[in-house]
Amino acid sequence: MPPLHRTLPALRRLRLANASFQQPAHLRLRPAAPPLRTLHSSPRARQEEEKVSPTTSASSADHAPQDAPDRPQSKIKYTSDSYPDLKRDSRFKKVSKEDVEHFKKILGSEAAILDGVTNETGEEDFEQYNSDWMRKYRGQCRLVLKPETTEQVSGVLKYCNEQSLAVVPQGGNSGLVGGSVPVFDEIVINLSRLNKVRSFDDVSGVLVADAGVILQQADEYVGKQNHIFPLDLGAKGTCQIGANVATNAGGLRLLRYGSMHGNILGLECVLPDGTIMDDLSKLRKNNTGYDLKQLFIGGEGTIGIITAISILCPQRSSAINVAYFGLESYEKVMEAFKEAKKQLGEILSAFELMDRQSQSLYHQAKHVMSEEIVSDGVVAESETQLQSLWACREGISEAGQHWGGVYKYDLSIPLPELYSLVEDARKMFESNGLMHTEDEKFPVKDVVGYGHMGDSNLHLNVATRRYDKEVERALEPWVYEWVAKRQGSISAEHGLGLAKKAFIGYSRSETMIRLMGKIKETFDPVSGSVGFGVSCCEGIVAYADGLVCLQKGIMNPYKYI
Amino acid sequence: MPPLHRTLPALRRLRLANASFQQPAHLRLRPAAPPLRTLHSSPRARQEEEKVSPTTSASSADHAPQDAPDRPQSKIKYTSDSYPDLKRDSRFKKVSKEDVEHFKKILGSEAAILDGVTNETGEEDFEQYNSDWMRKYRGQCRLVLKPETTEQVSGVLKYCNEQSLAVVPQGGNSGLVGGSVPVFDEIVINLSRLNKVRSFDDVSGVLVADAGVILQQADEYVGKQNHIFPLDLGAKGTCQIGANVATNAGGLRLLRYGSMHGNILGLECVLPDGTIMDDLSKLRKNNTGYDLKQLFIGGEGTIGIITAISILCPQRSSAINVAYFGLESYEKVMEAFKEAKKQLGEILSAFELMDRQSQSLYHQAKHVMSEEIVSDGVVAESETQLQSLWACREGISEAGQHWGGVYKYDLSIPLPELYSLVEDARKMFESNGLMHTEDEKFPVKDVVGYGHMGDSNLHLNVATRRYDKEVERALEPWVYEWVAKRQGSISAEHGLGLAKKAFIGYSRSETMIRLMGKIKETFDPVSGSVGFGVSCCEGIVAYADGLVCLQKGIMNPYKYI
Repeated sequence: MPPLHRTLPALRRLRLANASFQQPAHLRLRPAAPPLRTLHSSPRARQEEEKVSPTTSASSADHAPQDAPDRPQSKIKYTSDSYPDLKRDSRFKKVSKEDVEHFKKILGSEAAILDGVTNETGEEDFEQYNSDWMRKYRGQCRLVLKPETTEQVSGVLKYCNEQSLAVVPQGGNSGLVGGSVPVFDEIVINLSRLNKVRSFDDVSGVLVADAGVILQQADEYVGKQNHIFPLDLGAKGTCQIGANVATNAGGLRLLRYGSMHGNILGLECVLPDGTIMDDLSKLRKNNTGYDLKQLFIGGEGTIGIITAISILCPQRSSAINVAYFGLESYEKVMEAFKEAKKQLGEILSAFELMDRQSQSLYHQAKHVMSEEIVSDGVVAESETQLQSLWACREGISEAGQHWGGVYKYDLSIPLPELYSLVEDARKMFESNGLMHTEDEKFPVKDVVGYGHMGDSNLHLNVATRRYDKEVERALEPWVYEWVAKRQGSISAEHGLGLAKKAFIGYSRSETMIRLMGKIKETFDPVSGSVGFGVSCCEGIVAYADGLVCLQKGIMNPYKYI
Repeated sequence: MPPLHRTLPALRRLRLANASFQQPAHLRLRPAAPPLRTLHSSPRARQEEEKVSPTTSASSADHAPQDAPDRPQSKIKYTSDSYPDLKRDSRFKKVSKEDVEHFKKILGSEAAILDGVTNETGEEDFEQYNSDWMRKYRGQCRLVLKPETTEQVSGVLKYCNEQSLAVVPQGGNSGLVGGSVPVFDEIVINLSRLNKVRSFDDVSGVLVADAGVILQQADEYVGKQNHIFPLDLGAKGTCQIGANVATNAGGLRLLRYGSMHGNILGLECVLPDGTIMDDLSKLRKNNTGYDLKQLFIGGEGTIGIITAISILCPQRSSAINVAYFGLESYEKVMEAFKEAKKQLGEILSAFELMDRQSQSLYHQAKHVMSEEIVSDGVVAESETQLQSLWACREGISEAGQHWGGVYKYDLSIPLPELYSLVEDARKMFESNGLMHTEDEKFPVKDVVGYGHMGDSNLHLNVATRRYDKEVERALEPWVYEWVAKRQGSISAEHGLGLAKKAFIGYSRSETMIRLMGKIKETFDPVSGSVGFGVSCCEGIVAYADGLVCLQKGIMNPYKYI
């Protein structure tokens, strides 16, 4: 058996792609693979499991459906059509020409406004702001604002709140749950022009930067001073650090550097009424009151807009090594993980799992490797090998779609039971007669499991030969119930957005959901109910301290909770 | 010049002591130095800067004032006398015999109640619950409840809320800001009997344990399985992990393992109305809604009681090394810190600063070492030497009191300016003619700086020969203003409690304070105002979902914000 490191360099670099059953692999758009940049980035650009690198505005052609000419249904469905039960909230005003004039005054620059209200701007110009890169969601926004300063964000929100204009904060628009695009005609507040590094202290490692700085640029900036941004993910070339914080992005460095809740030292946010909350601390220790910024981390833009972040960046490591082990059981994998943690301690930066079935699918779909690798072990000896090893891991995601499509679940499950879900799903499909690995008559070909085991994050993929309602009924709510029983999470790192809003009950108790509602009400109350104060009449809240403030629940409506 | 490692073993192990000007060193109680236990604990038991090991209930004799017989004023002043402007809130009911009977029913056991309402229990039995270990605060509570289960905590709070009985949650009562003792007659809810480890998974390193587990016991528990509790502090033998979380304790492992906000994976809390909030997740990734538990981390028991925690414990290191460097300027110290971070990366667990003046004071007070050590450098070669090096660092705190007393400030300051405060304070005292290192006529002897530089945490100590109003007026609000100008924190790791409630404005903006007030109102609204709902009449809140709930603002009143 040839060592893996001799086999791997022969592998082609796989194109990275998103998979979703609704858009079978052979029809779906594949974003171009990002260029290999550094050892730190692209080899790890496992797009499907992380936030994914969407096509940028500059390459919108790639974003267009690659359908055959005889498939005129290629346009993305409007979210309002996909979710017929969701109705536009009549509390929200429609954008008028007077509103646009006011925004022009606030923002000053023509470049800051994409205006389809007073202009004849075509729908296609709004496509990149209205649609998510997965092509699952499509809003009907006709006004995009791109403020350049925190004060402009403040001015915009103050006006929107006064005028009951709903808004959607938007970063690189690379999310996976439809959180960063409008549902109806909400105004998009795009942060891309708010993109300056404010300061970096190479002693403490504290970076302070505008929300719209691209993740990769932030990493390169601190990298020049021998530090590393404590977050990395596939969409690094597109996604923005403020939105990363707003969605509490997990990514590839979490095992080693921890979550945003620990790394973010401060935030500057604009509240729905335009108030600037300056909590842009550079301090590691500050025990003076409730840590409010934590609510904005993972708040998905529902209680305010993050305009700047202060984040602790660790020293950059001088070396990276990748090892690949074939082990006989999940128990042995757990032992290997324990051993890796013990031997490597804090320098272990990722521990990934790929089961035999996922590798088998990969072999069948790609015809590039022998089965033997699953009982092999190898350490990458060059950058090429290192990249090849990661490519192998990345390829599994695409491989599953070879036969038709894949049902994909991104789940957190306590480590001891993490892999049991895959086994149980297999048993379930065997017992209900829906699965056969060879026989084409069966809709399910195989069930595979892989993912960021070091973070207890499993990707359950059900590779199918065709779309089948029976398979779907067998999977849902079975998967969610299985996860809920083990106190897992139905969304490990992608958030709720519109996609998972309805399913939060599988991961959070009634009490938690009620309290979350209170938080939303506290920061962005919906008129008719009241926040901290006494309801005077619709939409008017009298604060105990005498202030009267209009509050309209304008922040990223229809989503989250 | 003999190398430091030959000199240090000769140093006596210094007794650890708390310093505060109000109680000059020669009069103050000194808690006995804790026994040397392990390399990890006692050498680092820098009591004064960390949460401090108070005398426990078993050794309450140590806690009594060590005054001469002719000093009958030895009793700790009631907080109500020290803070004459603070009045008991008449909204709160006084505890009745019927209330005590009800609590007996809820708690079941005699051991769970210390009852001075229906019994003739003497005041001295309540001393350890009413007074803080620094002897600065003293409440007048006559009822201590010690629930053993979360359900009992829930029952107690539900009743207290219904009956408008104010409560103070209490752990090991080792805080430094008076947060864990009553101000008036609030009921103490002591968590010491809620003290079981619930689970530990040695693969993921996740420990789930009751709030009342002693920190040291938690560390030893995971230590047996080769893990380390990510928090360590001087009071580890007394303080409780739930209270550590409630006060967001910093401690000695923060530089390496990060803050509670990153390490805590889940909490179980009881809300003021008795509702149990089960957010005891063991997951590293769970992006399903606002991260509510973060509000309880550092919430100091003002919005609910933490009854259990889920925390990520790293692998225990196999070796510890300590190095001691003498450097010529703060700039060089910053360079050394950068170099240490670069060379050691994540394995650097502490980086401590001691300026020349602090070492000079130490020499003069202790007569044990030559001045040369400040330009020396040494690596500890044995456990004894390692402990001696830490003892040297620890001794500085006590040394400053040798001449009378010390004004102490525990501050977070951005690293580049951290030491400037010491220099500016010196200049200030030189220019106003209050300081002279030799001349006894001057009240101030010296200004020294030391602390957890790795966490940007400075201890500014002003060593004085006598109490002097002029010195105090020169220091305050000068120090707070200095820190505020640099966006520092007036409480790095000790919290607000009663002591710093009035000063929060130096570290937080009006907006932040207003929002914090909203959070308090959301979870524990004070009757008369309303939370999420509509005010019907005093203390009654009608929730939008139809619930009617009494809310009385009973949680740890008079403190925090």
